[in-house]
Amino acid sequence: MKVIISKLVLSVFLVCVCSSMVFSQNSKDQGNFVMVIHGGAGTILKSQMTPEREKAYKETLTQALQTGYDKLKKGESSLNAIEATVRIMEDSPLFNAGKGAVFTNEGKNELDAAIMDGKTLMAGSVAGVTTIKNPITAARAVMEKSEHVMMVGSGAEKFARESGVEIVDPKYFWTKSRWDALQAIKKEDSTKTELDHGNKKSMKLGVENRDHKFGTVGAVALDLNGNLAAATSTGGMTNKKYGRVGDAPLIGIGTYANKNVGISCTGWGEFFIRNVVAYDVAALMEYKGLSVNDAAEEVVMKKVPALGGDGGLIALDKKGNVSMPFNTAGMYRGTVTKDGRIEVFIYKD
Amino acid sequence: MKVIISKLVLSVFLVCVCSSMVFSQNSKDQGNFVMVIHGGAGTILKSQMTPEREKAYKETLTQALQTGYDKLKKGESSLNAIEATVRIMEDSPLFNAGKGAVFTNEGKNELDAAIMDGKTLMAGSVAGVTTIKNPITAARAVMEKSEHVMMVGSGAEKFARESGVEIVDPKYFWTKSRWDALQAIKKEDSTKTELDHGNKKSMKLGVENRDHKFGTVGAVALDLNGNLAAATSTGGMTNKKYGRVGDAPLIGIGTYANKNVGISCTGWGEFFIRNVVAYDVAALMEYKGLSVNDAAEEVVMKKVPALGGDGGLIALDKKGNVSMPFNTAGMYRGTVTKDGRIEVFIYKD
Repeated sequence: MKVIISKLVLSVFLVCVCSSMVFSQNSKDQGNFVMVIHGGAGTILKSQMTPEREKAYKETLTQALQTGYDKLKKGESSLNAIEATVRIMEDSPLFNAGKGAVFTNEGKNELDAAIMDGKTLMAGSVAGVTTIKNPITAARAVMEKSEHVMMVGSGAEKFARESGVEIVDPKYFWTKSRWDALQAIKKEDSTKTELDHGNKKSMKLGVENRDHKFGTVGAVALDLNGNLAAATSTGGMTNKKYGRVGDAPLIGIGTYANKNVGISCTGWGEFFIRNVVAYDVAALMEYKGLSVNDAAEEVVMKKVPALGGDGGLIALDKKGNVSMPFNTAGMYRGTVTKDGRIEVFIYKD
Repeated sequence: MKVIISKLVLSVFLVCVCSSMVFSQNSKDQGNFVMVIHGGAGTILKSQMTPEREKAYKETLTQALQTGYDKLKKGESSLNAIEATVRIMEDSPLFNAGKGAVFTNEGKNELDAAIMDGKTLMAGSVAGVTTIKNPITAARAVMEKSEHVMMVGSGAEKFARESGVEIVDPKYFWTKSRWDALQAIKKEDSTKTELDHGNKKSMKLGVENRDHKFGTVGAVALDLNGNLAAATSTGGMTNKKYGRVGDAPLIGIGTYANKNVGISCTGWGEFFIRNVVAYDVAALMEYKGLSVNDAAEEVVMKKVPALGGDGGLIALDKKGNVSMPFNTAGMYRGTVTKDGRIEVFIYKD
């Protein structure tokens, strides 16, 4: 058994090393990708990662890509592919979405997700839901089984239940590592509040440590019929208060797809909202004629940092060109080409 | 007393007649407007309007414009002007925002609002709030007193209370006309459900009569320093279910402002979301060099109807050019120029 595991570790390691040798990082217009995914951008440093943890991330990213690829290869729609792919990441405790969602200040797991079909511009999203096992499937139900685009809170949960989406006890989302993270942040916050006590009035309500803002999963796919679709799912921000909604469930902000391009974002949501990031990439391509990589880089590497924000995005155009820019230390991400070659990455270099 | 009222009616009537004589309806680039407002687009037909009701709408639109204009004239910011202007419309039972908000399926008044500062790209919004007297003031508090952009439900209400925003009993929002409208729609829906009974499974959940989707207020202003700001506030859709969120509280969708243009939308929210309407107007201007009027017309008269949606928007550019396109029978709307000339309109012609 040990031998098998060791071999598995070695082979995954070799795949990764080989991948990074043949693959240019912020890949320019190669034109043969059929799916791109992310598992969140943020302060992901090699120095803070164990080999076991790194392996687990890469295996799940690979599994997610393989799942979507299998559907695309069979001729299924890009919508089917991204939903299946995002569900793999939602079901993994590694990512801040579904099962691995972070905790709010009140100790709850509040989930958001959005999906958009580039062919029809149909879209669906849910925000602040606590009992839906796979929020991306609920978002798709909103898109396909209602006349609405966005539903929040208990209303969204009622709709999901009536639409046959799997409901779970909120306890399903409890994970030790996320719970411990909440306790650590609360302790940090109380220390900060004590330190700031003398100048309390100048403090903004709802101030959070920026490193707690990150963590989202997303996928964009191009199917055999040339149709694009994009999806994003998140557990939001550790210790979030006041019913805050980030960019992930907002169409045109964290998620967007049309006939030219599909985009899914991850980062400091407030800056992504103010920059209308996903649609801005699409608009720069359509109205200014920029390539997907130039458009994505313009927004993520210039416009978002200009306001003080950070994060990343994945984008895939109708010709199969991919872009995965991020201005943070790392972003869990990966691609699969039309011949089935899977490549996954974590750090900048 | 009667004589005074008659004179007032006559003078308001004359002002309106004169206004429509000197003012080209979908005003092209006159370049001297400092504020534009709307009170919702929809099936507003002259044949269904009484002279008293028409007068009341025009008086409130005039009062709202005058309030904002007085602030702009004194050198106050466009943010101050639009907040004060929207509050007038929120406090009036005539418009579907604040006091005149429509009822949800559960008999509640759930309010949404958003505000954006074109100079800084700061933005704030609240959605699904039931106890905040002026949601636009809560949206401004989110923008200025938190690090967040969007807050929903009870969390947003908690933040508003802590920020000193006026809280009211939910009963404050009860109005007879909106309550009667809900009962009429529910009766209509139950008849429809009965008729559709044999084919129930094919019905989409959450289907609503499109005429119940409309009603929003909004304002865009240009201050003496050349800064633009935009605001939108709404009570949503009569008989809405499942925690549906429309376009109004979504930055880049129903509300957007940058250094070039400010936009506030009203219409069938789902289609405005799928078209990322407000930011699309801004992008067409910035990236394709379109005038504010050409950009606004392109989106409202072509792109939104192409998907099957309807509604309207108001837009004001940095040079004081205004555009107010709508593809519905009517849109409550008005403008004020830098010399204080106020003009208000309801119908298409």
